[in-house]
Amino acid sequence: MASYQAPLREIGFVLNDVLDIARLTQIPGFGEATPETLTGLIEEAAKLIEDKLAPLNSVSDQQGCKLQDGEVTVPDGFTEFYRIYREAGWIGISQKTEYGGAGLPYTLGKVIEELLCSANVAFALYPGLTQGCFEALEASASDEIKRIYLPRLATGEWSGTMCITEPQAGSDVGAARTRATPNGDGSYRIDGGKIFITSGEHRMADNIVHFVLARLPDSPPGVKGLSTFVVPKYLVNPDGTLGARNGVRVQSIEHKMGINGSVTCVLNFDNARGWIVGAPNQGIQNMFVMMNLARIMVGFQGLGQCELATQNAIRYARERKQGKAFNGKSEIIEHPDVRRMLLQMKATTEGARVLAYETAMYVDLARHHPDARVREAAQDWVDLNTPLVKAFCTDSAFELGSLAIQVYGGHGYIKEHGIEQIVRDSKILCLYEGTNGIQAMDLVRRKLMLHNGRLPNRFFDAVRTDLGRGPETLTAPLARALDALERTTRWVQDNYKSNPDDAAFGSCDYLRAFALTYLGWNWLRMVRAADARNDTALAHAKRATAHYFATRMLSQVPALLDNVRQDAAPLMALDAGHF
Amino acid sequence: MASYQAPLREIGFVLNDVLDIARLTQIPGFGEATPETLTGLIEEAAKLIEDKLAPLNSVSDQQGCKLQDGEVTVPDGFTEFYRIYREAGWIGISQKTEYGGAGLPYTLGKVIEELLCSANVAFALYPGLTQGCFEALEASASDEIKRIYLPRLATGEWSGTMCITEPQAGSDVGAARTRATPNGDGSYRIDGGKIFITSGEHRMADNIVHFVLARLPDSPPGVKGLSTFVVPKYLVNPDGTLGARNGVRVQSIEHKMGINGSVTCVLNFDNARGWIVGAPNQGIQNMFVMMNLARIMVGFQGLGQCELATQNAIRYARERKQGKAFNGKSEIIEHPDVRRMLLQMKATTEGARVLAYETAMYVDLARHHPDARVREAAQDWVDLNTPLVKAFCTDSAFELGSLAIQVYGGHGYIKEHGIEQIVRDSKILCLYEGTNGIQAMDLVRRKLMLHNGRLPNRFFDAVRTDLGRGPETLTAPLARALDALERTTRWVQDNYKSNPDDAAFGSCDYLRAFALTYLGWNWLRMVRAADARNDTALAHAKRATAHYFATRMLSQVPALLDNVRQDAAPLMALDAGHF
Repeated sequence: MASYQAPLREIGFVLNDVLDIARLTQIPGFGEATPETLTGLIEEAAKLIEDKLAPLNSVSDQQGCKLQDGEVTVPDGFTEFYRIYREAGWIGISQKTEYGGAGLPYTLGKVIEELLCSANVAFALYPGLTQGCFEALEASASDEIKRIYLPRLATGEWSGTMCITEPQAGSDVGAARTRATPNGDGSYRIDGGKIFITSGEHRMADNIVHFVLARLPDSPPGVKGLSTFVVPKYLVNPDGTLGARNGVRVQSIEHKMGINGSVTCVLNFDNARGWIVGAPNQGIQNMFVMMNLARIMVGFQGLGQCELATQNAIRYARERKQGKAFNGKSEIIEHPDVRRMLLQMKATTEGARVLAYETAMYVDLARHHPDARVREAAQDWVDLNTPLVKAFCTDSAFELGSLAIQVYGGHGYIKEHGIEQIVRDSKILCLYEGTNGIQAMDLVRRKLMLHNGRLPNRFFDAVRTDLGRGPETLTAPLARALDALERTTRWVQDNYKSNPDDAAFGSCDYLRAFALTYLGWNWLRMVRAADARNDTALAHAKRATAHYFATRMLSQVPALLDNVRQDAAPLMALDAGHF
Repeated sequence: MASYQAPLREIGFVLNDVLDIARLTQIPGFGEATPETLTGLIEEAAKLIEDKLAPLNSVSDQQGCKLQDGEVTVPDGFTEFYRIYREAGWIGISQKTEYGGAGLPYTLGKVIEELLCSANVAFALYPGLTQGCFEALEASASDEIKRIYLPRLATGEWSGTMCITEPQAGSDVGAARTRATPNGDGSYRIDGGKIFITSGEHRMADNIVHFVLARLPDSPPGVKGLSTFVVPKYLVNPDGTLGARNGVRVQSIEHKMGINGSVTCVLNFDNARGWIVGAPNQGIQNMFVMMNLARIMVGFQGLGQCELATQNAIRYARERKQGKAFNGKSEIIEHPDVRRMLLQMKATTEGARVLAYETAMYVDLARHHPDARVREAAQDWVDLNTPLVKAFCTDSAFELGSLAIQVYGGHGYIKEHGIEQIVRDSKILCLYEGTNGIQAMDLVRRKLMLHNGRLPNRFFDAVRTDLGRGPETLTAPLARALDALERTTRWVQDNYKSNPDDAAFGSCDYLRAFALTYLGWNWLRMVRAADARNDTALAHAKRATAHYFATRMLSQVPALLDNVRQDAAPLMALDAGHF
């Protein structure tokens, strides 16, 4: 079975030595979120998650969820762990104290998300969606709704969902047809069907709060005619106690490739009562508040799975003996091709962690920093990084899961080792909250264009400032990657309006090249930080892994970007019938 | 559910227009294997496989195999289809007529292998292992053993296995411990345990013939002390009738990521009777006769899964509508990023098919051509191509399965669509018959070195001869890839003895770069052949797909090869404890 130990040394290194998380203490209200306090909390969460959640990973995959007579049964141990986890206050750890949260930094919440998602990504979706629902209501709901719902979501007493997708409306959200009809008493009658609803029905929480995208009568077609509603499983009395069952029922649950412990529902809204969240026809904006944070969260889910794949592959390769390597040793970690796979995994996971944590830290700065210019800059980084974190960390999770299987050989294909589960659990991360193709389009169509290209310029400037400081084996390929990225970015910005097909055709390669360049910067900063720490083992590992990254991964960026600056016309011209 | 239609037009195009399969008719005994005859047989097999086997793919994945009281139950429909398939003579289609086969070209057998593996790769392993066992016995067994066993394997009346792997002996075959002790009557007593035995126990055939690697008393350690034995499930009387149950039993069966319809056994040999195949301590050579053919077969399994992923993704993308593409159409095939994925799939599958079929054709030429020089050249191609076919086609199957899921979006993650099964079924192909890392080492350590580098030189010469004939959009990147590949090949050949770690570290990238260059040549030949055919739709499709391949895949080769020519020392120096 796959095992899991939280990478506490590495987490501390990234937070403190690479990112200087202490600067969050300058934010009003975060004065006590010192590095020491954060470390203590992370260690506490790690212990709970390692001891009580990680052992459920394999069994929850085997058992899955069951639907009988409209009721969902979750895997053994989930209900008990959900109770322990929520009672310890982890669900609302980053939510505002006025709504029942612990008021600690968003960054801390995301670090714990990583731990949770290494241990059991299927379980993590229950508190994860609850946090997403909280954030959506906090941003757009009326004070009355906030007063009733938020404290109960913060404690996990109630759990949340996002009801967006319909059979004909997947990536094309604007095709949604679910109807919302005013009842005349301030409430709405909701009718329609939603699919792929994570945590759509279960009994671990007393109530389930559905955040629903629906269409008011006479609203315009497409995304501009969508509004958002809160639709509870049980109606809620003004004092917050529960009333009658609402008209939302699970119709069926999906049988999936992985995340079997997470229930995925087809929900039927039939004369359900809901209350509007935010203004009419502003649903897509309200949804995106939550969606953007959800995308960062999914990136952390990917990071958690990257870590799980990497640490298990390294452990196995240290113990497993086969033949003799050229250096005379028998452990497979000494075989060059196995070592290559391990370094690919390590370079990716540790580099991605800096990207993800830095993004989370910018969320805190963008929300709370007293200086408006700092907030603006931080928000630019969040906007730029969101598609990178979401797509790169999740593509990497799938890739690293596959590499972990290769390290295990035939044993990796057998379920009892728990390694193939990583591939199955990870693949959904590349699909939900916008497929990774959608992320690439978001980067190319929106993020490069915002504020006259200010977002990527911040990145180019920051990396260029750091280029003078570091070993040339790393700075030279980083400079080459950066030049190619900047040149390609200008090409995309110039061409996009006239030839949208070109930029769209290369968007996934562009996103990958951007993320690899970002990781090159991260590796430069990690090497510098490790050298400064006087820890020989850490410095050796960082230097060797950075060397791998520079010579085998970063070096691919210019060629990848050559791909992007190509004419798509000959490819778009092929008749669909001739494929 | 995934559907399957044999790509008959494409198969005919590759065999006849690209490879000129008609030249096989010049081989004595193959005079009647004309293109028309082969086409007729392929169509007949395709109809049977489409109608009766493909519909079992999803159900056999769900049901899997069951072990009860030492007996294995295969999924519904397998026993019936096995009977139909073997009675139609397909299992022995390429085996010699003197041993009960149909005596048709090996190439034909492999084309049918592709069809079988698109329709149901788990099922395909039952006849596949039987063919492997036939080939091993045909190459090395005594006339007496051949007389008894081969005709029954050719008809599928008996089925076969290969018993190589043990818990401590995976990639390190020489660590095998299973013992063979002479009984004094010409037979041997076999004791030991084998794992990962495909088709190790079932009741679809009357007997199961195990081809077992074991160690004689006082034999040297490692691979030089291994011998091969035939160990039947039921002992065989001199007249071929079945006697008592032999001492080989299934101890347990594995629960796997995929290929659930194929039973994977832990076999226990306890005082089993076996008969030696070939000379003592020559087991590894005997095994490799079969293993090399098995590796080509696995490549065809990968090709079959590539085709399944590609044709389903194209079909879905033509029908599914989401939003509006820049050209105003709604089918997702018109969205540039979806089209990119489809072209990646199409360019890979069609290019890989030429590689695989050409390799199969060279097997026929190497075996049977009357001219010794033609045979020698053909064998060089077979030796060179075997690791390319095995590793590239199987890595591609996994990659294309993953892309197919992305094309389907969230629906691809749901089991009922049958798409995620491709990822699960394909992953084993990258592991068995030598992991793809082992294939890369075989290419770098052996195939580049044989006969003073004669094998890759044949390839370089052949491609260079063709470079003058074709559109420059294709020949220019092909020339660049070829130059880089030739230069890197010299580097590997020069450095391998002094710095084996360097070449080994880059071996997987080298193999991929070699395969992509090979596919570049294939695309050049396909474009030329399509232009010559006066079929506008085909010519358009080939040109556009070749353009994709040249600008997006072949273009990556030089950078990939830059990776290979790197010093591995800084990476090998990292202490295993510091990872």
